[in-house]
Amino acid sequence: MTRSSATSMAGELPGGVSALVNGVPGGELSLLDRGLHFGDGVFETIACLHGRARFLALHLERLAHGCRALGFAPPPDELLRHEVGRLAVAEERSIVKLIVTRGPATVRGYAASGREQATRLAIRYPWPVEDPVLQEQGASVRIAKMRLGENPALAGLKHCNRLEQILARSEPGAADTAEALMLSSSGKLVSGTMTNVFLVDGPAQSPRLRTPAIDSCGVAGVMRRVVLREAARAGVMAMECALWPADLAAATEIFLSNARMGIWPVGRLGERTLRPGPVTRRMQRMLQPLLDEPADG
Amino acid sequence: MTRSSATSMAGELPGGVSALVNGVPGGELSLLDRGLHFGDGVFETIACLHGRARFLALHLERLAHGCRALGFAPPPDELLRHEVGRLAVAEERSIVKLIVTRGPATVRGYAASGREQATRLAIRYPWPVEDPVLQEQGASVRIAKMRLGENPALAGLKHCNRLEQILARSEPGAADTAEALMLSSSGKLVSGTMTNVFLVDGPAQSPRLRTPAIDSCGVAGVMRRVVLREAARAGVMAMECALWPADLAAATEIFLSNARMGIWPVGRLGERTLRPGPVTRRMQRMLQPLLDEPADG
Repeated sequence: MTRSSATSMAGELPGGVSALVNGVPGGELSLLDRGLHFGDGVFETIACLHGRARFLALHLERLAHGCRALGFAPPPDELLRHEVGRLAVAEERSIVKLIVTRGPATVRGYAASGREQATRLAIRYPWPVEDPVLQEQGASVRIAKMRLGENPALAGLKHCNRLEQILARSEPGAADTAEALMLSSSGKLVSGTMTNVFLVDGPAQSPRLRTPAIDSCGVAGVMRRVVLREAARAGVMAMECALWPADLAAATEIFLSNARMGIWPVGRLGERTLRPGPVTRRMQRMLQPLLDEPADG
Repeated sequence: MTRSSATSMAGELPGGVSALVNGVPGGELSLLDRGLHFGDGVFETIACLHGRARFLALHLERLAHGCRALGFAPPPDELLRHEVGRLAVAEERSIVKLIVTRGPATVRGYAASGREQATRLAIRYPWPVEDPVLQEQGASVRIAKMRLGENPALAGLKHCNRLEQILARSEPGAADTAEALMLSSSGKLVSGTMTNVFLVDGPAQSPRLRTPAIDSCGVAGVMRRVVLREAARAGVMAMECALWPADLAAATEIFLSNARMGIWPVGRLGERTLRPGPVTRRMQRMLQPLLDEPADG
């Protein structure tokens, strides 16, 4: 399907962006929506290739879990699958962002009535320009000054309260680095602003892969889940646990994961230069078929 | 001015709600707005009486401070004043909610370009039905299980990341109480979900008024500021400091403050019954003229 025929199927926005609002082409949202007032919703950022949405089942599972954790019923999977598919099919590569909010409310105030009807927004963005250096030589990363407040009830969810990540990305030095790692308010390592982080250590013949437990803050990424799953399948020891900046300093390899980009080796952390190592390369090779040929799960 | 003539001046929404979007009557927002994606904005809830916005200078001051703290330029005061005024003038009593977001962005991701243009939303709601018992006999209050994550960079701001307050208001028991007090993740007393809290103790002839310092989380309310100011003017000792649940238990009087409702005595805290005391009554009398006849500051 060509671009021009696709545009008739979805609302057009600036920047080559198209969208569906509750399944209807459109570009606007009611001012009464609680998503706008309070960030009262969840989202997924889904890589779409050859018209197919990558890791869609995992994305929809997290989305539904997030809605339930916030106390509202998620939209039916089939509806979301259909809407993502309608947008994805029109482009060879695109990013479809799903936002599901608790919906509109005519009454002010934080309390939900329980009678809200969730709003479904599916927004297609052009695939971003990629820097091949990031995958090959590694990303330059710093540790953000901004820390993440701790709230176990929200930990893991990809909810729409993202001011901490925004502020981390606006710190001095942010423009010179591809990503910022964030600590929790109690000083634990959590994640990047838009990535999860993995540390490699242990002997070369039986390395250990560790990623911070997402139990007090941070997002439990889809690609993080895939990395843990594929490592286990391949017999690589991989675990979630409490990690601290000292663990970061002691790691022999560090890499970042993200649903769109897969794995980025960390090539620089503050003043320290790292070389993308054998475990990182092995994980990259292991994931590549899953990234190239989107299957459902 | 009558209701019907007013409706021609602002966008109409369900529930008797009217709105201006960047000064233009309307009821919808672009899907590209970062306010929707990330809660990337701030808000004010302004009581309007006889066509005038109460404590408007204080509201606009906090709003502008919030925009700057999030790293974007606030809209000119005069524009916001004009838009609030246009909505306020049409009703004898109303609530005007101002939301200012960082604005729309065609590029995904947390990083702001710095070239966004802030979005101004002014939304008028009907004045809510009031329960006179709350002002007279006091509110029934509980301590929420949900705690507030700590982040000094966001403390005090009335920003649009409000999932913690929403979850606190949806806990079992929330429907039976007028408000829930919240503790920070480290266990300090912070505020109610939509109010600030004041504790009274000390000898009857020279009582002491204390409210939690808003330095790690919570909103620094406009009415909180007015209470502190008016107490100081009247020679009542009033201070902001670290407070804990034990201080709550030891207080002889407790009251809540909020820009719309002024002061609510706390009449019940969990299993404990309190009687609205002389200091609370004195503060209520002191504030009443400011609530009845809105002046600017």
